[in-house]
Amino acid sequence: MNGARSLVETLLRSGVDTCFANPGTSEMHFVAALDQSAGMRCVLGLQENVVTGMADGYYRIAGKPACTLLHCGPGLANGLANLHNARRARSGIVNIVGDQATYHRPLDAPLTADTEALARTVSGWLRTSSAAADVGRDGAAAVQAALAFPGQIATLILPSDASWNEGGKVEDPLPRPRPEAVDPDSIETAARVLREGKQVLLLLAGRAVLSEAQALAWRISQATGASLMADYVTAHLARGRGRLQLERVPYSTDLAVEALRRFDHIILVGAKPPVGFFAYPGKPSTQYRADAQLHVLTRPDQDPVQALDMLAQLLRAPPAAIPDPGLRPRVASGPPTPDKLACTLAALMPENAIVSDESVSYGRGFYRHTHAAPPHDWLHLVGGAIGAGLPVATGAAIGAGGQRRVISLQADGSAMYSLQSLWTQARDRLPNTTILLNNRSYAILVGEYGSVGATPGPTAMGMLDLGDPLISWTRLANGMGVEAARAETMEECADLMVSSFAKPGPFLIELMTSK
Amino acid sequence: MNGARSLVETLLRSGVDTCFANPGTSEMHFVAALDQSAGMRCVLGLQENVVTGMADGYYRIAGKPACTLLHCGPGLANGLANLHNARRARSGIVNIVGDQATYHRPLDAPLTADTEALARTVSGWLRTSSAAADVGRDGAAAVQAALAFPGQIATLILPSDASWNEGGKVEDPLPRPRPEAVDPDSIETAARVLREGKQVLLLLAGRAVLSEAQALAWRISQATGASLMADYVTAHLARGRGRLQLERVPYSTDLAVEALRRFDHIILVGAKPPVGFFAYPGKPSTQYRADAQLHVLTRPDQDPVQALDMLAQLLRAPPAAIPDPGLRPRVASGPPTPDKLACTLAALMPENAIVSDESVSYGRGFYRHTHAAPPHDWLHLVGGAIGAGLPVATGAAIGAGGQRRVISLQADGSAMYSLQSLWTQARDRLPNTTILLNNRSYAILVGEYGSVGATPGPTAMGMLDLGDPLISWTRLANGMGVEAARAETMEECADLMVSSFAKPGPFLIELMTSK
Repeated sequence: MNGARSLVETLLRSGVDTCFANPGTSEMHFVAALDQSAGMRCVLGLQENVVTGMADGYYRIAGKPACTLLHCGPGLANGLANLHNARRARSGIVNIVGDQATYHRPLDAPLTADTEALARTVSGWLRTSSAAADVGRDGAAAVQAALAFPGQIATLILPSDASWNEGGKVEDPLPRPRPEAVDPDSIETAARVLREGKQVLLLLAGRAVLSEAQALAWRISQATGASLMADYVTAHLARGRGRLQLERVPYSTDLAVEALRRFDHIILVGAKPPVGFFAYPGKPSTQYRADAQLHVLTRPDQDPVQALDMLAQLLRAPPAAIPDPGLRPRVASGPPTPDKLACTLAALMPENAIVSDESVSYGRGFYRHTHAAPPHDWLHLVGGAIGAGLPVATGAAIGAGGQRRVISLQADGSAMYSLQSLWTQARDRLPNTTILLNNRSYAILVGEYGSVGATPGPTAMGMLDLGDPLISWTRLANGMGVEAARAETMEECADLMVSSFAKPGPFLIELMTSK
Repeated sequence: MNGARSLVETLLRSGVDTCFANPGTSEMHFVAALDQSAGMRCVLGLQENVVTGMADGYYRIAGKPACTLLHCGPGLANGLANLHNARRARSGIVNIVGDQATYHRPLDAPLTADTEALARTVSGWLRTSSAAADVGRDGAAAVQAALAFPGQIATLILPSDASWNEGGKVEDPLPRPRPEAVDPDSIETAARVLREGKQVLLLLAGRAVLSEAQALAWRISQATGASLMADYVTAHLARGRGRLQLERVPYSTDLAVEALRRFDHIILVGAKPPVGFFAYPGKPSTQYRADAQLHVLTRPDQDPVQALDMLAQLLRAPPAAIPDPGLRPRVASGPPTPDKLACTLAALMPENAIVSDESVSYGRGFYRHTHAAPPHDWLHLVGGAIGAGLPVATGAAIGAGGQRRVISLQADGSAMYSLQSLWTQARDRLPNTTILLNNRSYAILVGEYGSVGATPGPTAMGMLDLGDPLISWTRLANGMGVEAARAETMEECADLMVSSFAKPGPFLIELMTSK
């Protein structure tokens, strides 16, 4: 068999059964191999950033890597922004990049680029297969690398002759990597700090904000009086009834400093020390008090459940019931506001929904009003490269096997970066509901002008205005085969949500919001 | 003044008066400075690959660089594919990338990426300004670098504190670089080869396919019997009545080998030795005869006009009139075909039009039927990263000061990569007419399956099918504020072309073609 087929077979043996693809000439043999080996679902994205973002969303929900299929250096380049986001989300992806044949590359044909240099900027593991006989081995190694706890991007560059030459060998899966061992000293230190009775924050990130870790953290909090917060950089949070009412460290430097001011100690559970997304003139770069002491309970590559369990036992923390979040909010009415949208969403979202949140500035208060919704998973943009929301939502729907409603809370400016996602939602009849927040501007940047101390004139404000010409998201969605309708009030929005949640396939609600 | 303002002022002094932008927080001071310094036109693109592609198209037509404004590593990443294309087109671009403040970068905030590594893959010149006092100096150097003959990408990375700190100094323009000197020996060698009377090809690329060089090449050809062809990798060709009827080396390896088979000598005028876009099993990587002799008349960084003039003089080649291309074709009728579209375009295109050709496989025969059109400029995708056509067309319209009709011949699959260009065309009321060739597939790849010897099954063919769901390009254009209509016949297409050419602003014709 040829190298391409050995790769597809090896991926399948290793449990990778979904391929997000935007192939070109150099990937034709891989694509052809998909018909020779049963079991690989192939999902087409019409731009590579859609492809890579889907792979990120898939991993967050399926908990196992998919592979991508990208075309040469420039195809990889198109997908880098969402690979950047996936890297920050610590998602596992087997990122396959076809490339020039080994003997053709030195000729510097037009599409030739420094594929390895591009890949290195986002990859935790990188290898170029130079011969068909190596492709299976390298594929198995890539899957193993993608699974390195809690997940990373493993890029396999596949020259076209390594794909088409005979001599491919199917390889068995390599052992799944285990998390790095928890350091008993870090447990002891955390316990000591927690017993001292000062103001202590357990700052949770990564898998420490999923249900199992939440329950342990809550026990510790109840036993010691420690506070709990989620890192702003949180890719995937378990939320709703039965889960903790965790708030994230705020985005705004001023608010984050305010929120963290009272803590003498911050125990990091998979989190990094909290810093601003950006620097601002005259404001601190770090958000915690200068004399606060930071302690690492777990690094991101250690298992927070194990560590929190050890800590709870050491503290003899008794079982503690997760607090009831109170009454489920009701559908709101009248002109849209962020709070009304959050209430309406909480009132209507189906059980076990997935929320893909790229609402940017509009959605900073969504958490408060959605605690009392049914249990759901909330996915955030953590790398800051806007354009992740729709692809992540699309991949999440596939990662959930089409069995869960995925709701995008999607700002308009960000949506424009990867609107091609809508076509894939229609192609694969996915249960995606997009609530497109059309405020006709890059609203976050209007706020950022103030934060950086710049004074915008008309040209500057023109750079943030998406209102001339007006973008019609219903037309854009229709143009890509997705049903859509516009809502001017919360009643209209609620009606459309109800009808979309009740039927299969994607739908887009264009919610006209104020700037 | 702050660093950002010193940069804007320096750029203006150096003749850079157009900025293609998609800014974020770290670029706010640069954007604010645009209102303090009169004269910089700022054009917003809603995705970075639109921004960089516009800068490429602008350079090709305006003949001087614009600057870009991109947001951090991931924003640069989004624009890399069209920077790759611009690099292959040898377009000059002052590529400004805002980034984290120097003191914030070590904290590895979420949006932090290896901006320099990304930039290095496409840049001929790269510098990071580390202090406000350096920004003006670095800006002047970047403009000079972008102007290195025939043009290159000069990337200036601008940490946000270098923008906002005081101490900026406006710098005067640096001397414009001159082309590298022509080598008299290469002129002698070419003259000797041409006098020997064997089968000689002058292979023209870069500025050797613009009008002045064409006239000289024609004189040489008439005096010596040498053949003339344009390199396949040609960004900008002067065409139509009064220009040479140059054909490009074909894309297909088989056809290229056939076209080059008879030549004993190939004299390269700004061209590289012709090689296949890709390798194919059992086919040669190089397209010229193995025993053909290659001679470099000019490298890309040497002036082909000077060299051809010296060569014509040495050969005592007499003046030679450019041949008349015959009757202007007439508008075609009935179902669309490539030939009919070429004839109709030639019949209707206004004087001095610009054609941005990303028709991919559909347009491989467009040249033959458009020689007898009025004089026009034809822009090609030369780097192979699809998604350049619409941005290049948009930037070309701006580069021509809105005074020339720009006609996009645009394949549907490629258009999906950068459809956000349409919004900028509407925002800036640009004279762009897009003829969107809707064949509902990645048609080129259907052909490539055969060339690489792969046998596609249903999954593989599904990866090339854009027909489920159908994409409505009229709706997509309308959604972004561009008027549009669908044409099923050449008569309908012709009517829409006539009406679009006669009125200002953009228009999209969705031409339904067979697969």
